[in-house]
Amino acid sequence: MSSSFGTLFRITTFGESHCPGVGVVVDGCPPRLALSEADIQVQLDRRRPGQSRLTTERDEKDRVRILAGVENGLTLGTPLALYVANRDMKPADYRAMSDVPRPSHADFTYQEKYGIRASSGGGRSSARETVGRVAAGAVAEKFLADHHRVEIVAWVSAVGAVEAGGVDPLRIGREQVDRDPVRCPDSAAAAKMAETIRLTKEAADSIGGIVSCVCRNVPAGWGEPVFDKMEASLARAMLSIPATKGFEIGSGFAGVRMRGSAHNDPFVMKDGRLGTATNHSGGVQGGISNGEPIFFRVAFKPVATIGRPQQTADFTGAPVTLEAKGRHDPCVVPRAVPIVEAMAALVLADLALRQGARP
Amino acid sequence: MSSSFGTLFRITTFGESHCPGVGVVVDGCPPRLALSEADIQVQLDRRRPGQSRLTTERDEKDRVRILAGVENGLTLGTPLALYVANRDMKPADYRAMSDVPRPSHADFTYQEKYGIRASSGGGRSSARETVGRVAAGAVAEKFLADHHRVEIVAWVSAVGAVEAGGVDPLRIGREQVDRDPVRCPDSAAAAKMAETIRLTKEAADSIGGIVSCVCRNVPAGWGEPVFDKMEASLARAMLSIPATKGFEIGSGFAGVRMRGSAHNDPFVMKDGRLGTATNHSGGVQGGISNGEPIFFRVAFKPVATIGRPQQTADFTGAPVTLEAKGRHDPCVVPRAVPIVEAMAALVLADLALRQGARP
Amino acid sequence: MSSSFGTLFRITTFGESHCPGVGVVVDGCPPRLALSEADIQVQLDRRRPGQSRLTTERDEKDRVRILAGVENGLTLGTPLALYVANRDMKPADYRAMSDVPRPSHADFTYQEKYGIRASSGGGRSSARETVGRVAAGAVAEKFLADHHRVEIVAWVSAVGAVEAGGVDPLRIGREQVDRDPVRCPDSAAAAKMAETIRLTKEAADSIGGIVSCVCRNVPAGWGEPVFDKMEASLARAMLSIPATKGFEIGSGFAGVRMRGSAHNDPFVMKDGRLGTATNHSGGVQGGISNGEPIFFRVAFKPVATIGRPQQTADFTGAPVTLEAKGRHDPCVVPRAVPIVEAMAALVLADLALRQGARP
Amino acid sequence: MSSSFGTLFRITTFGESHCPGVGVVVDGCPPRLALSEADIQVQLDRRRPGQSRLTTERDEKDRVRILAGVENGLTLGTPLALYVANRDMKPADYRAMSDVPRPSHADFTYQEKYGIRASSGGGRSSARETVGRVAAGAVAEKFLADHHRVEIVAWVSAVGAVEAGGVDPLRIGREQVDRDPVRCPDSAAAAKMAETIRLTKEAADSIGGIVSCVCRNVPAGWGEPVFDKMEASLARAMLSIPATKGFEIGSGFAGVRMRGSAHNDPFVMKDGRLGTATNHSGGVQGGISNGEPIFFRVAFKPVATIGRPQQTADFTGAPVTLEAKGRHDPCVVPRAVPIVEAMAALVLADLALRQGARP
Repeated sequence: MSSSFGTLFRITTFGESHCPGVGVVVDGCPPRLALSEADIQVQLDRRRPGQSRLTTERDEKDRVRILAGVENGLTLGTPLALYVANRDMKPADYRAMSDVPRPSHADFTYQEKYGIRASSGGGRSSARETVGRVAAGAVAEKFLADHHRVEIVAWVSAVGAVEAGGVDPLRIGREQVDRDPVRCPDSAAAAKMAETIRLTKEAADSIGGIVSCVCRNVPAGWGEPVFDKMEASLARAMLSIPATKGFEIGSGFAGVRMRGSAHNDPFVMKDGRLGTATNHSGGVQGGISNGEPIFFRVAFKPVATIGRPQQTADFTGAPVTLEAKGRHDPCVVPRAVPIVEAMAALVLADLALRQGARP
Repeated sequence: MSSSFGTLFRITTFGESHCPGVGVVVDGCPPRLALSEADIQVQLDRRRPGQSRLTTERDEKDRVRILAGVENGLTLGTPLALYVANRDMKPADYRAMSDVPRPSHADFTYQEKYGIRASSGGGRSSARETVGRVAAGAVAEKFLADHHRVEIVAWVSAVGAVEAGGVDPLRIGREQVDRDPVRCPDSAAAAKMAETIRLTKEAADSIGGIVSCVCRNVPAGWGEPVFDKMEASLARAMLSIPATKGFEIGSGFAGVRMRGSAHNDPFVMKDGRLGTATNHSGGVQGGISNGEPIFFRVAFKPVATIGRPQQTADFTGAPVTLEAKGRHDPCVVPRAVPIVEAMAALVLADLALRQGARP
Repeated sequence: MSSSFGTLFRITTFGESHCPGVGVVVDGCPPRLALSEADIQVQLDRRRPGQSRLTTERDEKDRVRILAGVENGLTLGTPLALYVANRDMKPADYRAMSDVPRPSHADFTYQEKYGIRASSGGGRSSARETVGRVAAGAVAEKFLADHHRVEIVAWVSAVGAVEAGGVDPLRIGREQVDRDPVRCPDSAAAAKMAETIRLTKEAADSIGGIVSCVCRNVPAGWGEPVFDKMEASLARAMLSIPATKGFEIGSGFAGVRMRGSAHNDPFVMKDGRLGTATNHSGGVQGGISNGEPIFFRVAFKPVATIGRPQQTADFTGAPVTLEAKGRHDPCVVPRAVPIVEAMAALVLADLALRQGARP
Repeated sequence: MSSSFGTLFRITTFGESHCPGVGVVVDGCPPRLALSEADIQVQLDRRRPGQSRLTTERDEKDRVRILAGVENGLTLGTPLALYVANRDMKPADYRAMSDVPRPSHADFTYQEKYGIRASSGGGRSSARETVGRVAAGAVAEKFLADHHRVEIVAWVSAVGAVEAGGVDPLRIGREQVDRDPVRCPDSAAAAKMAETIRLTKEAADSIGGIVSCVCRNVPAGWGEPVFDKMEASLARAMLSIPATKGFEIGSGFAGVRMRGSAHNDPFVMKDGRLGTATNHSGGVQGGISNGEPIFFRVAFKPVATIGRPQQTADFTGAPVTLEAKGRHDPCVVPRAVPIVEAMAALVLADLALRQGARP
């Protein structure tokens, strides 16, 4: 296990899907930051399933409690402990554990790695693990906003083959994003995405998508070459989110086809500082922020849990047809939006403190 | 600076492009591993520029020396120090330092971050920094081959708009890759890539590309959820390489458009072990290797140094036309092949030791 | 803040004396370890104040809950979260905060460091912080006992000027230690220690002491030169316990006066393995365990909270007479015994896993 | 192996006693620090054997080279690589390796841990390993002096049973310390120490000693509770030095016998800041510096290498008489002075940067 993330702004998450609860310890949060449970709850609510007919209908009320590190509404500089009780905490009896590893789930790999696995719900590989990330990310965002005016906004830019257009990374805000339950601010595309998700659900299937994210007002100088470059840290953060398969920053994979003369971002004066006329770099050069918006995209695969019967094998290799029960999310990307924002905030808060340590 | 990578198999690189030399300390390499300078030199030679007319023509003879950690041809379990002297080690006089930050280079961001920068050659953001990675990666590969029979092979799968086809990740070897200087094993595509590079060079411009990589014989169970998942660690490793803009594993960005019923990898018996019939997961599930080949792709932008004049601004914001002198690589991806392999080996060696620590 | 300890067996503690609760996340505990709340409670009970008339009389019932990481009585290999609710969790109103930093407490230094401090009870510098350590240490001990038969026993070897004699580190057990409330197995010395504590209490004062500790059955080969040597790791662990002022291993400070010919531990065959005839080294050579018992001692100062009036200054520097209220521990060393054992167990568990990673 | 030390000011040492060379990479040194090889050489010269008739007579000329990280006399903020070639770099042929593990050396434990060991000279457990520490420590001292006016002075306060008196930690300087080759500023005691060393040498034996150290001008607020407390970090640093057996800070082991009313350091105004009237705390409270001088002592055992014949056993357990050849240091503490200073500087530089990161 490696459930810690960050060097100076450092989080450690815990909790399986069916144990008493999930949470996070945030070590290194600066002191004297105004922080309440409400500051954290708002992002947990955005992450919760059951917010619309598009996603799963379970009613998870995730109330966060601050167990340590805050007094009279201010952080003490000591570790914060944030906790969310699980509602259905009873793990299944281990005798009832399935003999069939679910395809493209982590049943098989956890069993191979640990010689044991949680008896139900995916345990630590469940999406429920992200509760701690989102809670900690809300704290990181509070620090970034209060100390650096940093703004982080993510949105759904693709569901299956439907891609959003016309989203301006310089102006997009969370209100716009949340206007539509699919969390795509291009309303025409959003409608097509909703239809795609509806059809996928009817087919008892699932579909992938892309979350785009912009971080504005990041000052030049954040990012620690050579292994904790801004883009390397973001890539690690994003690929640690369940169901992700890809990451690109700035021009990304499309930049491969460009010539350097078109790709290079020329310097110009902007609002009294040296900026760049274009931003194919996505706000980073040599692993360090350059003062332009940081822009990246994260690819999510179709979730592995589907209602359709699947031909597969049990742990002994015997062929078997697997049919999942219950209701499942046909598409996770709308709920992934606050998770992507949280991981971005955690990366930035840590790099901000690390740059701040330089005298 | 953050020049260390890995938890148990841990490297620390050092050196700018024009200081006395570059190198790496490898801490945590297992003892009693047969290791010679020749084992390391082979990959350094593959990384060196000037190997063909396609890349730059400078003649860098990078001879590695093992300064510590090996005796009588065996590692002692103590830190290895690997060193390569720079041939042109004299830094420019700081009075001669350019007033113009090169577009999409790290001149501006290093200056903003550190308040100082190397006077010539890009310093630590130079491609020369990767010498240490490749040297350490060769050691990691030796360990992985000797102890686990792991095979790592990378190749060029795209240059600009030219994409390779028909490369079988199960069988591709380094000899095949090196047969053509462009390091693309699809010879028809290789010819077109060479032509693209030639035309780009004539235009005094540069072009991007994609490096694909497969890691075979990785046993099930490697990767440390939740933040050091296999894919998260690989993503970080690859995005820390200069000029990278994207990473994808398995189905990657294309997987977004698939439905779960098609994307899920069903289990089947294979050679007496439980394997998967397809490999859209790219060899990982829940962040842990599943015994199938690990397959990923890395996007490289067109290099920033080009011969064509560029309109930009100097540090004061005054408009200026910049013209680079000297000869430059129009396309780095052929040389990036051993760098991608090295970073993959470093990730795998560390995760192997970490899984091995579990009793 | 730096509330994490360990590389592979890694703990993160949280909680102030008057927040909702205190606890610890244990990341890296091996899977399939039999573990119950009772396994942990036993050491928490030994650490609790109010166990005898000798120590403070508050009745802290510290019931531990396992919030995550265990199912059906077995660890899952995922992070364990251990939690103990505080009984008197209401922090004081910040307006009531004292203007007087208590001498030799951390009021002044926390205020200087963080610009804020917990309004009562010492916050994170309180002895209450050690609850998480003891809980995690009990898990580490379970692993060490089950996998390596390691035994760890600490005892009080000095209170003020009274020193224990005749304790055999090869045979001493916890039952013997707990027979007397002062936790000194030399009963004559224990009686004198009790009398010293009684007199100190009558004088509304406090007194220091020494805790000795032995770790038996530690195999040769644990300890990671050069900076995580066994003795360096133990020294850090012990000096991180509140109120400690010194650490010595083997011959310690007394060894300074010995000649090498007397201090050197000659090798001899013992039970079929190469051992040493004497153990001035304290079970370590070159930072690595040699198979002999590891033996060390920890010095505790007299606790800073005393009932007697003290002449000091307030935060503005104005002279003031300070009188503490309430009942206080005149001597912490009996309660420190399980804390020393816990920290030793955490060091050994981590070094065991790190050595186990070596193929 | 764990050859790295520090979180933000982080060093990684390498090198055995008989490989090509020893050295250190310093990652995280602040940029724009004036630094030359001479700044480092001065402490390496103080560490070198052969400075007087009291210590060994080998003539090791340790010339340091800065291989990376400095340009035009200023640090770049990138990793510094500091290197010292070994003069007698030829390791012995492995067939010549002794069958007899030297008593209280690390021959046996390295062999047990790694299954291999350096064929001569103690390899990584040799005192030669400290060259890298001293070089890196000189850089840390330069940073501490330039940015914080911190002064670090260590001296020999005991050799065998001879103890120094009358040394004023507030005033003692390195010049005074170096006036006598034994590095004890109490000249009467120094003479007795020299005589003790002379007699020990005549007896072909060795003797232990104590090094005391003071760090002045450390501002209040350094030290990271709860596991990287100032005293915990110093203890780890000191116990990682070869041949150390104990550490105490402030009142140390003697404080055990004091009552709280005498031990507590009352606050008083001093030079316009809140200070303490006494300093039994040794400059730290709750793990954080309080602005008073940090004062600690380190116990060194008699070195294991002695000329006298010793009865011991070979690796098979067969009894054997061992006689060391060559000339050896009868007492290491004079040479340990700059090593203690170096480790103190490394601890302080790291904690300074970590506190500086707090906004």
